[in-house]
Amino acid sequence: MKVFGVIMAGGRGTRFWPLSTVKMPKQFLGLLPGGTMLQLTADRLAALCGRKNVMVVTGVEYRDLVLRQLPWLSPDNLLLEPVARNTAPCIGWAAAVLNDRGHGESAMLVAPSDHWVEPAREFENTATLALRAAEKGLLVTMGIPPDSPATGYGYIRKGSELLPGVYGVDSFQEKPDATTAGKYLEDGGYFWNAGIFAWRVSEILAAIALHMPELSEGLKQLGGCSEPGVDRFSMLPSESVDVGVMEKAGNAAVVPASFRWSDIGDWPGARDAGVSRGEAVMEDSENVLVYDTTGRLTVVMGLSNVSVVCTENATLVMADSCAQKLRKLSDRLQ
Amino acid sequence: MKVFGVIMAGGRGTRFWPLSTVKMPKQFLGLLPGGTMLQLTADRLAALCGRKNVMVVTGVEYRDLVLRQLPWLSPDNLLLEPVARNTAPCIGWAAAVLNDRGHGESAMLVAPSDHWVEPAREFENTATLALRAAEKGLLVTMGIPPDSPATGYGYIRKGSELLPGVYGVDSFQEKPDATTAGKYLEDGGYFWNAGIFAWRVSEILAAIALHMPELSEGLKQLGGCSEPGVDRFSMLPSESVDVGVMEKAGNAAVVPASFRWSDIGDWPGARDAGVSRGEAVMEDSENVLVYDTTGRLTVVMGLSNVSVVCTENATLVMADSCAQKLRKLSDRLQ
Repeated sequence: MKVFGVIMAGGRGTRFWPLSTVKMPKQFLGLLPGGTMLQLTADRLAALCGRKNVMVVTGVEYRDLVLRQLPWLSPDNLLLEPVARNTAPCIGWAAAVLNDRGHGESAMLVAPSDHWVEPAREFENTATLALRAAEKGLLVTMGIPPDSPATGYGYIRKGSELLPGVYGVDSFQEKPDATTAGKYLEDGGYFWNAGIFAWRVSEILAAIALHMPELSEGLKQLGGCSEPGVDRFSMLPSESVDVGVMEKAGNAAVVPASFRWSDIGDWPGARDAGVSRGEAVMEDSENVLVYDTTGRLTVVMGLSNVSVVCTENATLVMADSCAQKLRKLSDRLQ
Repeated sequence: MKVFGVIMAGGRGTRFWPLSTVKMPKQFLGLLPGGTMLQLTADRLAALCGRKNVMVVTGVEYRDLVLRQLPWLSPDNLLLEPVARNTAPCIGWAAAVLNDRGHGESAMLVAPSDHWVEPAREFENTATLALRAAEKGLLVTMGIPPDSPATGYGYIRKGSELLPGVYGVDSFQEKPDATTAGKYLEDGGYFWNAGIFAWRVSEILAAIALHMPELSEGLKQLGGCSEPGVDRFSMLPSESVDVGVMEKAGNAAVVPASFRWSDIGDWPGARDAGVSRGEAVMEDSENVLVYDTTGRLTVVMGLSNVSVVCTENATLVMADSCAQKLRKLSDRLQ
């Protein structure tokens, strides 16, 4: 079965201010060794589907950034959203384009462009299993075995085993409170919903037709166009594929991931994934992220659970507890 | 009575790293509006004794810095220590030089170069009172009425009133622990020892001869020279004038200060004195000092009682509780 890798790279998130901005969101940053988040994601998918089958969906304003970071990307495989929508239109559009090109019976491996995944070899193993399940007609999501009672992710409760290593989905759970998350962790039957999917092009389009008829209709009107007008695109319903399709589908499945994963949703998350830069001296300090792009020494004394980020434009000193407020503040500052 | 203002500007302190360094200690920094610490001190003294009677004692390596900051300073009145000694040799030397120039019966008003004093008018009032007492042959120190049980200063217990507003010294107390400091504060008869003095040149020389004969002998060998060799100068006993002279003198007196004062001993102390620089945004933060010399925005979120200092060379983020450790760290880093 032919496989296409579809990278969702439309995020405009600025939770990494002052490093990230609307003009340079997280997926284009080199937070980790080996390339930008987008490049690392593209490499992981290309290992499974080949570079010529890698497709990127992003905002039209990020066209040049993507082509600079992925010079090998086939221009046909760059889908430019004229406005930001949610994941269901993004994925549905990519599926519709592939279908129009005669790849209805191929598989799509869909991944966000800005997640941390380690090691790549285990991603390949899990994805191979997921693609095998997709071949059988299942809509597969990868489930991350939780190692903490995180409240920032949705959870998936697994059902019975459908294929070796592939489970039905008993239910999708919204982001829980801490107590509930603790129970999920103890139970052992719950996974974090990582937003990484595998399915046949025809299956996801059929599920959209069934559960999101409005989106299905809208996609037909786009007609496989890779640069649709803002009028048509903005009419697509802004909904996540999880809520719009997966929660309603009878053929949803989950494959537990053998890789370690983080969505690196904020600076403390970046620290946990090993992100750091610049020369730093710490004293009486624990769990400190230092990220300095200016080449200056950073000294932190007597502070724990903080992020210190220095760029040519600004210095951010932030307690972990405020990480979720940064987006709002950075919107105000930009 | 003629008055000479003697500024002790030999500090090599680096508790203001990364802003201050051995090459640019605190007294030469423009922490406050209106000039550098040295310039502000010189202005306060000049108001009482005239610019031509201002004398500066500093390290030989700071010669150019002093002359650049005080271009009006008479070169004869710049005493250059070839090595750092404590305050007794510094003050004794200045007194010996003045005595050699025929000013034995003049008064000396002695002040450290790096303290914060506000308002200048009240300094003038207190100093005038102190000089009046000095004229009567007393060795006068200015006592700061404590407004908190600070443990970082020595205390003076006042004795009986000798002249209006001038008290004998019952005892000098070393830096106390917090409980003792609390008692001193409650008692009301204690003052912080600010290290600002007034006395007749002849009186301090007589007291040195009596209580520090070794220093007295060493000063005679310098013979009024304003640039002594390192051999002779380094033989002077390194002792504070408080311990070496004031604690033993029978004619010590204290004048309670009507001005507000801080030695600005560290970054939190600077914050209390109103020091700040650069554009800053705070959220969920209290008691934060931001000092940025680079023109960049500083954002602090969710942290209190911290100092954030950004220079072209380094970024310091420090909890108040670590302020006293900074000196050691900066010595290591330089």
